[in-house]
Amino acid sequence: MSLPNTIGSDFAFTCFGESHGRCVGVVIDGCPAGLEIAEPDIQKILDLRKPGQSIVTTQRFEEDRVEILSGVFKKKSTGAPICLIVWNSDQRSSDYEKFLNTPRPGHADYPAFVKYSRNNDYRGGGRFSGRITAGFVMAGAVALKLLMDCLGMKFIAYTEELGGIKADVSDLSTEQLERFRYSNEVRCPDLSTAEKMKELVIRERGSGDSLGGIVKCSVLNVPVGLGEPVFSSVESDLSKAIFSIPAVKGIEFGSGFSGSNRRGSENNDLYVKSSEGKVATKTNNSGGILGGLTTGMPVVFRVAFKPASSIATLQRTLNLSTMEENDLIVPGRHDPTVVPRAVPVVECMTACVMADLAIRGGFIRRVLA
Amino acid sequence: MSLPNTIGSDFAFTCFGESHGRCVGVVIDGCPAGLEIAEPDIQKILDLRKPGQSIVTTQRFEEDRVEILSGVFKKKSTGAPICLIVWNSDQRSSDYEKFLNTPRPGHADYPAFVKYSRNNDYRGGGRFSGRITAGFVMAGAVALKLLMDCLGMKFIAYTEELGGIKADVSDLSTEQLERFRYSNEVRCPDLSTAEKMKELVIRERGSGDSLGGIVKCSVLNVPVGLGEPVFSSVESDLSKAIFSIPAVKGIEFGSGFSGSNRRGSENNDLYVKSSEGKVATKTNNSGGILGGLTTGMPVVFRVAFKPASSIATLQRTLNLSTMEENDLIVPGRHDPTVVPRAVPVVECMTACVMADLAIRGGFIRRVLA
Amino acid sequence: MSLPNTIGSDFAFTCFGESHGRCVGVVIDGCPAGLEIAEPDIQKILDLRKPGQSIVTTQRFEEDRVEILSGVFKKKSTGAPICLIVWNSDQRSSDYEKFLNTPRPGHADYPAFVKYSRNNDYRGGGRFSGRITAGFVMAGAVALKLLMDCLGMKFIAYTEELGGIKADVSDLSTEQLERFRYSNEVRCPDLSTAEKMKELVIRERGSGDSLGGIVKCSVLNVPVGLGEPVFSSVESDLSKAIFSIPAVKGIEFGSGFSGSNRRGSENNDLYVKSSEGKVATKTNNSGGILGGLTTGMPVVFRVAFKPASSIATLQRTLNLSTMEENDLIVPGRHDPTVVPRAVPVVECMTACVMADLAIRGGFIRRVLA
Amino acid sequence: MSLPNTIGSDFAFTCFGESHGRCVGVVIDGCPAGLEIAEPDIQKILDLRKPGQSIVTTQRFEEDRVEILSGVFKKKSTGAPICLIVWNSDQRSSDYEKFLNTPRPGHADYPAFVKYSRNNDYRGGGRFSGRITAGFVMAGAVALKLLMDCLGMKFIAYTEELGGIKADVSDLSTEQLERFRYSNEVRCPDLSTAEKMKELVIRERGSGDSLGGIVKCSVLNVPVGLGEPVFSSVESDLSKAIFSIPAVKGIEFGSGFSGSNRRGSENNDLYVKSSEGKVATKTNNSGGILGGLTTGMPVVFRVAFKPASSIATLQRTLNLSTMEENDLIVPGRHDPTVVPRAVPVVECMTACVMADLAIRGGFIRRVLA
Repeated sequence: MSLPNTIGSDFAFTCFGESHGRCVGVVIDGCPAGLEIAEPDIQKILDLRKPGQSIVTTQRFEEDRVEILSGVFKKKSTGAPICLIVWNSDQRSSDYEKFLNTPRPGHADYPAFVKYSRNNDYRGGGRFSGRITAGFVMAGAVALKLLMDCLGMKFIAYTEELGGIKADVSDLSTEQLERFRYSNEVRCPDLSTAEKMKELVIRERGSGDSLGGIVKCSVLNVPVGLGEPVFSSVESDLSKAIFSIPAVKGIEFGSGFSGSNRRGSENNDLYVKSSEGKVATKTNNSGGILGGLTTGMPVVFRVAFKPASSIATLQRTLNLSTMEENDLIVPGRHDPTVVPRAVPVVECMTACVMADLAIRGGFIRRVLA
Repeated sequence: MSLPNTIGSDFAFTCFGESHGRCVGVVIDGCPAGLEIAEPDIQKILDLRKPGQSIVTTQRFEEDRVEILSGVFKKKSTGAPICLIVWNSDQRSSDYEKFLNTPRPGHADYPAFVKYSRNNDYRGGGRFSGRITAGFVMAGAVALKLLMDCLGMKFIAYTEELGGIKADVSDLSTEQLERFRYSNEVRCPDLSTAEKMKELVIRERGSGDSLGGIVKCSVLNVPVGLGEPVFSSVESDLSKAIFSIPAVKGIEFGSGFSGSNRRGSENNDLYVKSSEGKVATKTNNSGGILGGLTTGMPVVFRVAFKPASSIATLQRTLNLSTMEENDLIVPGRHDPTVVPRAVPVVECMTACVMADLAIRGGFIRRVLA
Repeated sequence: MSLPNTIGSDFAFTCFGESHGRCVGVVIDGCPAGLEIAEPDIQKILDLRKPGQSIVTTQRFEEDRVEILSGVFKKKSTGAPICLIVWNSDQRSSDYEKFLNTPRPGHADYPAFVKYSRNNDYRGGGRFSGRITAGFVMAGAVALKLLMDCLGMKFIAYTEELGGIKADVSDLSTEQLERFRYSNEVRCPDLSTAEKMKELVIRERGSGDSLGGIVKCSVLNVPVGLGEPVFSSVESDLSKAIFSIPAVKGIEFGSGFSGSNRRGSENNDLYVKSSEGKVATKTNNSGGILGGLTTGMPVVFRVAFKPASSIATLQRTLNLSTMEENDLIVPGRHDPTVVPRAVPVVECMTACVMADLAIRGGFIRRVLA
Repeated sequence: MSLPNTIGSDFAFTCFGESHGRCVGVVIDGCPAGLEIAEPDIQKILDLRKPGQSIVTTQRFEEDRVEILSGVFKKKSTGAPICLIVWNSDQRSSDYEKFLNTPRPGHADYPAFVKYSRNNDYRGGGRFSGRITAGFVMAGAVALKLLMDCLGMKFIAYTEELGGIKADVSDLSTEQLERFRYSNEVRCPDLSTAEKMKELVIRERGSGDSLGGIVKCSVLNVPVGLGEPVFSSVESDLSKAIFSIPAVKGIEFGSGFSGSNRRGSENNDLYVKSSEGKVATKTNNSGGILGGLTTGMPVVFRVAFKPASSIATLQRTLNLSTMEENDLIVPGRHDPTVVPRAVPVVECMTACVMADLAIRGGFIRRVLA
């Protein structure tokens, strides 16, 4: 389908808005009628992504107050499209004019100029800005509510690695993971590692450089058989959604890349009866997905984020009109790393995909209650 | 869109057929009119994927002779849908009845039984078999021809790692990569490593176990600006396509996972003027993709394949009717590793995505002169 | 969506094949698993459309024997795509070369030549031939079975008007409509009128001219609430499907065009309690559709077919290379009217749309018990 | 595709909003970058549909001032999604609570209650209100500008029949049609008939009844070969779009229903050389469409609108909780006929379809110079 700003089919959303335009918004189509949903349900997730909250994020300040423009009546979804919007307020657009001829390394500037003959809104990265993920989060908040209410599904993403520092959560319970991850600015449930990560971020921000990292995401209480073979396998749909998040450069499910150098006898997950008497597997190297279908085990995957492209240090680039190399300083207010704010975004995109597959597969009805 | 067996929008294909059914086929919709295409163009790519060719693959023998059923007239595409088919011949279906109650570890058996209430064609894995990738290759062969004829694009995939043995191609030219990779059974252009990989495969086949590996794929001569933000980013569409290949569990673009622990100042690719006077970058950590758009540098990514799930050794599984654990022996003819035969499949799926994006972006016209 | 040869979303089909190519086929995606379906179920509907059966149709003879290539196992649908095919046998392609420069009036020749730069398969009209509706019928036969088995829905189409002769069915019961319509070559349940229609067709065939007509279609036992506002209203989806049948030039639902000169007080259907105690309406001027949703009353619509474009009489046309006007004689074997053979085609396309909406609306489950 | 609130593929729009909600809006995806477009371009078309303008329309007053929320920068489209919105202001929602148990004849109330279990926003008809066509018009205004700027295409719709009174425009030039149609409240270019139509509307409004009518639409300067066989034939896509307009119950192209009782020799359009030396046809019974493709002749079709369902006179209906018949009076401010305000809506939906097909067919580039 050629609708590049729409994702999903049965729980789908279309996003619009630019970093320095009037707003960022989404239109959700396919949310079942009868879901109890109100602005606070969305706001609480949106607040997790909000900029300007701490020393580890950009100092651009946006209130990001969600407004429901349609599709909800008497605090319930009606079955009609749900339009959700946040208005932009704290843009400083004069910063960006200078990049028209000197594309910033690591950003979309150059290919976007070529593709759109410079008609694109280049202010603040326009459509390529991480700001558009505010839309992803609004849609995801509805999906999270839907999946929790209907299927009891839970989503737990967190910062597993930041700037090369790796968390160890092996001795944490699910409850601790849930509780600890949002207790600190870097969204890492391993609290002592979180402290080190935060120090590193502060140090890099000082030197004008940036960091990448890895977000791990688990989905619990997943029904067996989500996924629509062959091209809407769970991995296919999830990876498509996750790679739409700016700065993502890799994804792996279950044992992923490390599984590729194991033997089959090591990597196959053997079936066992769980303590609740259900079908389970002893290990979960598949990440809860076989043949593109969920197995009922937790869906587990890891997402690699590159270091933020906006850095304050001097870089070399090409002047596109003179074809000479130039020095470039990128001013503005930047995230020294996008990873902490990406945690809820990964969770929300995952929820949107799962909601879509759950409705497609008949796991959630078109009209609730 | 809810067409789970269709991928793409402007160069799209729908696939059908099962491992032990009558045939495997595809219908391509959107191939521009006027492309010179005939059965040999498709056959030569299909032959690269064909089973039964060497000691490193399954001993199931299929001729896999492509037939063009529609959409081609006077050796040119007409603009109408192109149906391509290969007939199945060497099925041995009696092997599979026994797995109805004892799902094979690593396979789709269990979630498929639940999802379809056992109505699915379970023989040979049915729709979940690697055999359906014969369809992907037929569609891809058309895409490869289209992209070569119209844009001069080239696709070079090869086995980079197999069973933990890693190739080193640092001193090979593009021409050597192209030439060497298909010169050996494991499809690795580093010929001395290829020898070691082959030995390992033979050894594992002997012991009834299986191996995974990594396929690296590069696309050359890519126009600037392929990709449709935000949800048809090049990474989004490629990853969706690649994860539809059975046994894929990870993908990374450019510096990928390893880039996630670099600093921005190390990972950003600086713009320079190339020797041909064009815009280029000094490094290619982005894998040729920024903001989801191609930069004109080679598109580069790596794909992790799990070890083949079918192994000859004894495994434990659950009997779904008694809920008791059982021993299980999986007979049949299996690939000890899917990696070598997956090389052309990765290339073909990549070509399909690139053809789709090239048409959507207006890089290829609807009717070729 | 840009898949011009695919229709539907949840019960969708993709069609391929040309009039004088190797075959005509469809791939159905979305048929629920567990439907009992075998070749005879499809063949019996396909036989109603078959050419060469009587004096009122073309003398081209095709056996039109359906083959199920995929998606059915143990006489039940598996949930995988169902490929259905009929092979072409009785083509006489030499007839058509001459029209390359002198487009036939009423046919697609001229715009198709321009659109595809003459790459299209022009033999027998290629993709624009009525022959492709064999594919529509194969898909429709599956939809008819699905809707009958799951919802008890019935489809009754018949020739209401032919060459200006109008049937009167006011005193026929539903059972008589069903029984009588296929009892004669013109598919008109008003048997005395059918006789007159047949005579007219024979007379026109003799003089080399052709006739148009009107097909009326009713759908019974329709659940309340089919239709997906706003763009998949029942009228929207049905009209899209029906206008894909060659030679259709008009459609109206319920009182349609004649309703447009009534007052609201005459045209509104008042709600009453039916004899079975259900909600019904006194009249059915809406054709069973309000706000794009089914009301539970029969869905009723009329389809206008133009007279067949292929006539044996001398016509004037333009020679596209000289831009001079020429005489033209169109040889070949033609239907003097397409209306009788279109009756099952209308029924089948209607069934496909209804199956799609029924699945989308949750009226039919993804897996039948 | 299961996106019921999205139409089109390459120039697509998603609509949202309800009659008595906060707003009505659309998100256009696929508008080429570089189109000069600003609020006045849209406002001038929107004003043609605005309620409360004259004695022949509803007395609900809405300013309907368009706001561009995204996708336009420096008065040009950027290639990003364009969100357009009008805010609702003059709702009187208390009127509607009473219909929850007593569905209004002719409206969507009953099937919508069943479909959505009464979760739908029933105020003012909610999503089923004609008010949502304000969104269609905003999208259409962009399409009209695009097609005029790129291809010089013109759209001329007008009221051909109202309450059974038929216009005669046979002696009007194209220029007069364009000029006269919007010179009067009923949008009929035959000015003396317009006067009679207006008198009839005023009379019916007085008696509390309503009228239907017919809108005729012509598209001029159409390129040859628009349309994507087989399921995106011009008739298929246009009819789908037109039937999404509330109150439409019929459509016919060219000679349509009346053509169905002609002979082929009468109805076929013979090719001739036009006065400009181009390929043309002597007559235009095909409505400018053969084989689902445009022929270059004007695209011509007629649309039947039923009389408005909201009438002030007493009607009988069923009380859904008691299943007893009741008297019903529908208060509120209603259009005595929707036809005059539907004229720009038909034009706008037609433009959206044509823009979509023009981009799909490569007639308009993705980026305007």
